[in-house]
Amino acid sequence: MYSIEILGNGYYLPKHKIENEELNTIFSIDSNWIYKRTGIQSRYYVEKEKIEDLAIGSVKNLLEHTNFSIKNVGIIVVATTSTSKLMPGISFAIQKYFSIDNCLCLDILAGCSGYINAFDIVRKYIALGEVEYGLVIGADVLSKYVDHKDINTAVLLGDGAGATLIGKTDTQKKYASFIESDWRDNEILTCATDEKIFMDGKKIYKFGTTRTVQNLRQLLEITGEKLDDIAYIIPHQSNLRMLESICNKLNIPMEKMYINLERVGNTFCASIPIALTEMYEKNILNKKDKVIFIGYGGGLNLGSILCEI
Amino acid sequence: MYSIEILGNGYYLPKHKIENEELNTIFSIDSNWIYKRTGIQSRYYVEKEKIEDLAIGSVKNLLEHTNFSIKNVGIIVVATTSTSKLMPGISFAIQKYFSIDNCLCLDILAGCSGYINAFDIVRKYIALGEVEYGLVIGADVLSKYVDHKDINTAVLLGDGAGATLIGKTDTQKKYASFIESDWRDNEILTCATDEKIFMDGKKIYKFGTTRTVQNLRQLLEITGEKLDDIAYIIPHQSNLRMLESICNKLNIPMEKMYINLERVGNTFCASIPIALTEMYEKNILNKKDKVIFIGYGGGLNLGSILCEI
Repeated sequence: MYSIEILGNGYYLPKHKIENEELNTIFSIDSNWIYKRTGIQSRYYVEKEKIEDLAIGSVKNLLEHTNFSIKNVGIIVVATTSTSKLMPGISFAIQKYFSIDNCLCLDILAGCSGYINAFDIVRKYIALGEVEYGLVIGADVLSKYVDHKDINTAVLLGDGAGATLIGKTDTQKKYASFIESDWRDNEILTCATDEKIFMDGKKIYKFGTTRTVQNLRQLLEITGEKLDDIAYIIPHQSNLRMLESICNKLNIPMEKMYINLERVGNTFCASIPIALTEMYEKNILNKKDKVIFIGYGGGLNLGSILCEI
Repeated sequence: MYSIEILGNGYYLPKHKIENEELNTIFSIDSNWIYKRTGIQSRYYVEKEKIEDLAIGSVKNLLEHTNFSIKNVGIIVVATTSTSKLMPGISFAIQKYFSIDNCLCLDILAGCSGYINAFDIVRKYIALGEVEYGLVIGADVLSKYVDHKDINTAVLLGDGAGATLIGKTDTQKKYASFIESDWRDNEILTCATDEKIFMDGKKIYKFGTTRTVQNLRQLLEITGEKLDDIAYIIPHQSNLRMLESICNKLNIPMEKMYINLERVGNTFCASIPIALTEMYEKNILNKKDKVIFIGYGGGLNLGSILCEI
């Protein structure tokens, strides 16, 4: 079993920025309504860009920060909830754009926390020595599936993509995951190919804040770590009120959680890798830091990953 | 690393059978045209059933053949190219139908050979000791995405689902996979959520017969087995002419390949597990037999798996 390490990060946001002001007018709400309830000030929507363009953009951004040759990637897994092509998938479009040979591609549909599943799958291919380097990507174009008259989703969701390059390392590094799906109440967050996203905000809030905390505690139990051993928690950026509640329940200061939804909103599968990229850009993380990603959302699906920087 | 074994199989076909006669009239072709070119006599189309119903039906059928308690399943991976729900996926619908707790669910989009990817992922979770039992499912409702005026696809494709239960075993059993994606020519087989399936038959024929043979040879090179050591090849049931060409290039008799497309047509992700179920029903396979699954299709994606019964 090989250890893995994070070797690069990148993200891509469309150019078209939607400030709260624009939505305040549409929904006839006062200027602070959205920020107070969600912690979000802006989000981005695609104009002409396709979901493949966002995903490719995130990989280009990743490559700007590293000397890594993309041709060495042996697996590309893209998590999404809003693909427009059932075949070929987004991962295949990335492979084609960069002309990568000897590479296995697949897209996964596992709800908003799909990045967690994708990361865990790529890690397995590397840990078992089948490939040396892999790309884990989360990409979503939620503006396409948002009912722009539905205040529950329109104020929260945005478009974006994030990419993480992981690779084999000879240094022993801690890794653990705990991913689970919950069949109960799975009608509270849905999206069909020919419908808009439906979200029962109250029930999602309860699920996200309760089950996520349980899941994270179970991960820590598996690994034997304590919350004090963890440098940062990098959560799915769902809603600031949910993240505050999770910190409260875990009895940790908000500063232990990296939060960037103020600027980008909730981008479903893209939220964790976008946040992770920002953390690397800001040099927040140090070698040997242990971080935990936590994801939760439609499926219902949830999971956490502990990994060492 | 734990070995895995196949513990159960099942499939489900919709009730509405479409015989060649029906299509002969639509396309004004003579009575033997379709069979001569494809080896297909009939295929099945859904009427009211959804893709989730097909997938659940295949698991019900699997359970009829075994005493296994479905509650013990720890992972469900569904491969599809024609899902109607982006969230929650088909795997989550199966989890809900059977009320399975402590289970990880995800759907994958990896073209017609997605079952190969799904099998390989579930095997990894079991091999690493993270779960004991997993369901690998291929499900497709291609009639929804077929342009029924396009003779290239309408005569070939059908609907169906197949399920394979795999589990951890203390008996050492051979397993190897070789999966690869090919970025060249990936416009020759496509399907968007709001479009019909496009297939360039001639180019697919060339890709399928050439690259599949290369892929299988590479798998054998990895494992050190020879074709003589293999009891059966269970291919993606694309088209009889392609399968004949593959046998020809491999210099093996047609009898070494299990072929059932005459009755069910090409069901994309469902084709291998439906064929596998039939083989178990007919008691064709014996313990310790080595078999090879080969998949190929949109993406472009292809892969083969050697596993021991």
